[in-house]
Amino acid sequence: MYDLIIIGSGPAGLSAAVYGRRAGLSLLVIEEKPMSGGQVLNTYEVDNYLGMPGMNGFDMVMKFKEHADMAGAEYKTAAVTGIRTKGDSKAVMTADGAVYEAKTLILATGAEHARLGVSGETEYKGKGISYCAACDGAFFKGRDVAVVGGGDVAVEDAIYLSRICGKVYLIHRRDKLRAAKGLQEKLMNCDNVEVLWNRTVEQIYGSDLVEGVRLRHTIEQSEEDLAVSGLFIAVGMRPNTEAFRESVPCDEQGYVMAGEDCTTKVPGIFAAGDIRTKQVRQIITAVADGACAVSSVEKYLNEADF
Amino acid sequence: MYDLIIIGSGPAGLSAAVYGRRAGLSLLVIEEKPMSGGQVLNTYEVDNYLGMPGMNGFDMVMKFKEHADMAGAEYKTAAVTGIRTKGDSKAVMTADGAVYEAKTLILATGAEHARLGVSGETEYKGKGISYCAACDGAFFKGRDVAVVGGGDVAVEDAIYLSRICGKVYLIHRRDKLRAAKGLQEKLMNCDNVEVLWNRTVEQIYGSDLVEGVRLRHTIEQSEEDLAVSGLFIAVGMRPNTEAFRESVPCDEQGYVMAGEDCTTKVPGIFAAGDIRTKQVRQIITAVADGACAVSSVEKYLNEADF
Repeated sequence: MYDLIIIGSGPAGLSAAVYGRRAGLSLLVIEEKPMSGGQVLNTYEVDNYLGMPGMNGFDMVMKFKEHADMAGAEYKTAAVTGIRTKGDSKAVMTADGAVYEAKTLILATGAEHARLGVSGETEYKGKGISYCAACDGAFFKGRDVAVVGGGDVAVEDAIYLSRICGKVYLIHRRDKLRAAKGLQEKLMNCDNVEVLWNRTVEQIYGSDLVEGVRLRHTIEQSEEDLAVSGLFIAVGMRPNTEAFRESVPCDEQGYVMAGEDCTTKVPGIFAAGDIRTKQVRQIITAVADGACAVSSVEKYLNEADF
Repeated sequence: MYDLIIIGSGPAGLSAAVYGRRAGLSLLVIEEKPMSGGQVLNTYEVDNYLGMPGMNGFDMVMKFKEHADMAGAEYKTAAVTGIRTKGDSKAVMTADGAVYEAKTLILATGAEHARLGVSGETEYKGKGISYCAACDGAFFKGRDVAVVGGGDVAVEDAIYLSRICGKVYLIHRRDKLRAAKGLQEKLMNCDNVEVLWNRTVEQIYGSDLVEGVRLRHTIEQSEEDLAVSGLFIAVGMRPNTEAFRESVPCDEQGYVMAGEDCTTKVPGIFAAGDIRTKQVRQIITAVADGACAVSSVEKYLNEADF
């Protein structure tokens, strides 16, 4: 019986492991993948984590993991299939049939950006393709870029990029945007933004780096090439909460409902990082969640009858 | 007229500078002190900022500052005496009589731990004296320590330290604690905690490091020596909000009222880091606030009529 089981070992999970171990809690980190790091692992360069400028995602993960190792975190590689409340404790079931028990759980399995699923998308990730304008926009200073999507995030990304980049194209598959009216008005006032209506991205091409995208007009079915150095894909996120949805209340998009203190509706279960309902999903905010979640775990352990 | 003025250059202010510059905002950072870094500057060792284990506070500040410099932040050294809303913009007044204007403000002047004001307190800071158990407790593994205070934080600190340290003394000047009943019960169940009632700390002594504290019994007026390697001072915090209290709603302790999105009650004014109402005041949570505050600044600029 552990004081704490942390499910997931991205920035939120590893930070929780550091804070938890430093607080003297016995804890186990369960990670599905063979390597820790979550979304950061495949990030080409991270430049907004204060104190570690211009760092490759893989190197950053190594530093994070080394820190958690130094703090004495124990790991298990296994796919979590479900969680259960069992009297005062919690049980975590894994695909290999094992059951782990703890007084508290921190869910930190993160989220994933929805993909377009087109040719070149995997090949050029980090080489011109990005899923986060706030993370990567600054790498495209003065260059021409495109954003794909039609919601608030896509329009915010286009406005954001318009201050940094040369020309910004917004590619949208319909003839109107879902984004809030105010955002749309702001977008229309950006001189260097052009909306390409009724277009889907068919292919992303280039040499070492992205050089352009092939578009298809959804009505006329014609194809055209658009020369851009960057493509920002903003077509939604998917929280990794399949294993938890029956055990802890989630919002309609599937995010675990929890505020800044990471407390869910279920006593003893906490949610940290991209997995929870929040506005800003950044590495630094996930890491901060690790600290806040452990603080809430401690408060819970101080109040409960253990 | 800047897009953004950031007041304060601790972890929250410098992170906001990085995020703000990367977002293409014109911004000015105003800092009262000759050096950036806030409370971190005088911290002996920071070991819970994920990715930068076991780092001296001064070195950490240098890394933070270098990162903000690389992002292109502009600085001004001046003491802010007040802020004012002026039509759609904000004005910042400084002690040298200058007035700076911006569309938005981020208040990030932090908070300070209240001091005991006794002999040895300054001398042994970072050499056995700490104001944060979650930050420094792990450095005292197996050692005897004392906590001073009687509120929730002091009792939480004593419980926290009881899992890590040898003997833990809680020194309190009265014969009862202000802390929540549940916490008090938990404390009484910690075998290695002893409460020293009706005592004040008179002096902190040692050689290179703290070796003990001189206590005075508040009723009997007798003095006694207590041998400890660490003294955790938990007698409250003071937010640095004197210059803002008439301009933006604060709670009764003086913290600027703002949630995770850092939005205050005044449109266009945001609060990031220790200065705002929050549960967990850590370097990492302050840095995360810098990201969240800039995200809210962007949303405000996208919605306002600039």
